[in-house]
Amino acid sequence: MIKEKFTNLKITIVGLGVIGGSFAKSLKALNVDKVWAVDLDDKTLVKAEELGIIDKGYKDASEPIQKSDLIILCIYPKQIIEFIQMYKNKFKNNSIITDVTGIKNGYIKAINPILPESVDFVFGHPMAGREKKGIDFSSREVFQGANYLITPNKRNEEENIKLIEELVLAMGFKRVSRVDVDKHDEIISYTSQLPHAIAVSLINSDEWAPEIDLFIGDSYRELTRIARINEDLWCELFMGNKENLIPQIELFENKIRELKDYLINGDEEKLKELFRESTKRREKIT
Amino acid sequence: MIKEKFTNLKITIVGLGVIGGSFAKSLKALNVDKVWAVDLDDKTLVKAEELGIIDKGYKDASEPIQKSDLIILCIYPKQIIEFIQMYKNKFKNNSIITDVTGIKNGYIKAINPILPESVDFVFGHPMAGREKKGIDFSSREVFQGANYLITPNKRNEEENIKLIEELVLAMGFKRVSRVDVDKHDEIISYTSQLPHAIAVSLINSDEWAPEIDLFIGDSYRELTRIARINEDLWCELFMGNKENLIPQIELFENKIRELKDYLINGDEEKLKELFRESTKRREKIT
Repeated sequence: MIKEKFTNLKITIVGLGVIGGSFAKSLKALNVDKVWAVDLDDKTLVKAEELGIIDKGYKDASEPIQKSDLIILCIYPKQIIEFIQMYKNKFKNNSIITDVTGIKNGYIKAINPILPESVDFVFGHPMAGREKKGIDFSSREVFQGANYLITPNKRNEEENIKLIEELVLAMGFKRVSRVDVDKHDEIISYTSQLPHAIAVSLINSDEWAPEIDLFIGDSYRELTRIARINEDLWCELFMGNKENLIPQIELFENKIRELKDYLINGDEEKLKELFRESTKRREKIT
Repeated sequence: MIKEKFTNLKITIVGLGVIGGSFAKSLKALNVDKVWAVDLDDKTLVKAEELGIIDKGYKDASEPIQKSDLIILCIYPKQIIEFIQMYKNKFKNNSIITDVTGIKNGYIKAINPILPESVDFVFGHPMAGREKKGIDFSSREVFQGANYLITPNKRNEEENIKLIEELVLAMGFKRVSRVDVDKHDEIISYTSQLPHAIAVSLINSDEWAPEIDLFIGDSYRELTRIARINEDLWCELFMGNKENLIPQIELFENKIRELKDYLINGDEEKLKELFRESTKRREKIT
């Protein structure tokens, strides 16, 4: 059983939101030795203890991280830098840190120089989430069948990367891939940030609220679900990856302009060609 | 029981695709007197008879429509005009025709002049569907909780509009609304055609296929689901409603350009304002 690998692990989760809470629930189900959590919100910690999804909650990270083999940072990108700076002398020797943030390059460059020698930070990105915030919306199901990306760097030990890979597969992720950090941020600007930019812009161009509710079907609901967005987190992700995101938006703008031009010109054959191409592409996606 | 109202109804469904098949399944569940179907495809008719979701299938509409109180046209907009022209002398006196097409104005203008006096065409639009074609993907569930729009015109009898309203509510639609036909086409260009234009353009701007599959999460999957699109149907809907759709695309283009400008200028506060606005709007949608 692969699960036996994890029964000695002591783990601290920092930030018990949707993702942190989902990690806690998943790790408890794997019977790891300890799941501790750090959060600024008392109620969240009490709730998590009562639910039995953590062994103990802390407002200060000093105590749990000194005993932890693995620390999972489920906080905003900028907070990660602050966290490392604040606690750099408290980590256990040979412990592993990992994160869940949606953009990587800038943060890896900022974090690696301030990281203690004895700690290995394996940067990770679970491609999963919910549009609603907070532990109440966390669940093991969030991760089932989802993609996980790891952006290794030359400081990382192979065995530590492997541990993260095995752990997240055991939690229910379907595929874990190792990708170059620049490529990660470039493709993610297309698959993650651009869809959010589109959803926000679509709903913000509504001129018929509130009666719009009578005129919508599944497609509009789906295309706007993520327009309900955590403004602080996504502002960081957008601004932190703008060098990639801006050209992606422009590529998309070109494509929708092309479609519009075919409409204006009444070019049915060209329009159908776009539809055939999009259908072919969508059928390939799992 | 409202259902008793329908037990004497003889109904012909023309076109047994996803929507036609879902009508057949829903009407059978309501115990209407007869559900006949017309389709060009023999296999579809045989399958529907074997499933027991229709009483009998026909390739020629002449026979069933002569006996039908209600005819539901689940075919493409342009085919509706051909159908009315071909069968205008066959309809039973005082029968009702309805349709399910996603745009209305041009078709109502073309159909009303060629319609026999003794027939009442109540134009309808179920805001429901599937991205996959054919009877195999039909189900009663398609319609559960969905919106239904009716665009009455001065030829319509009040009692006939009411019958359609009661029938589709009994089938599981949540809300039926009567709307002005110009307004219907204008709002639908925003809630239905624009999301399809966006989904198609998003997936067509992918530059990383086939490895993109490793980098996607729920948001990308959702925003591209409808990029798998019936090219003939949607070409008709786009071209037939281009006077409304083009300005809608431009409104959306302005909104995404605004977002891009905030990114370029690093204006975090303005970007967050867009996110707050989109969140507020999305929370209001049911």
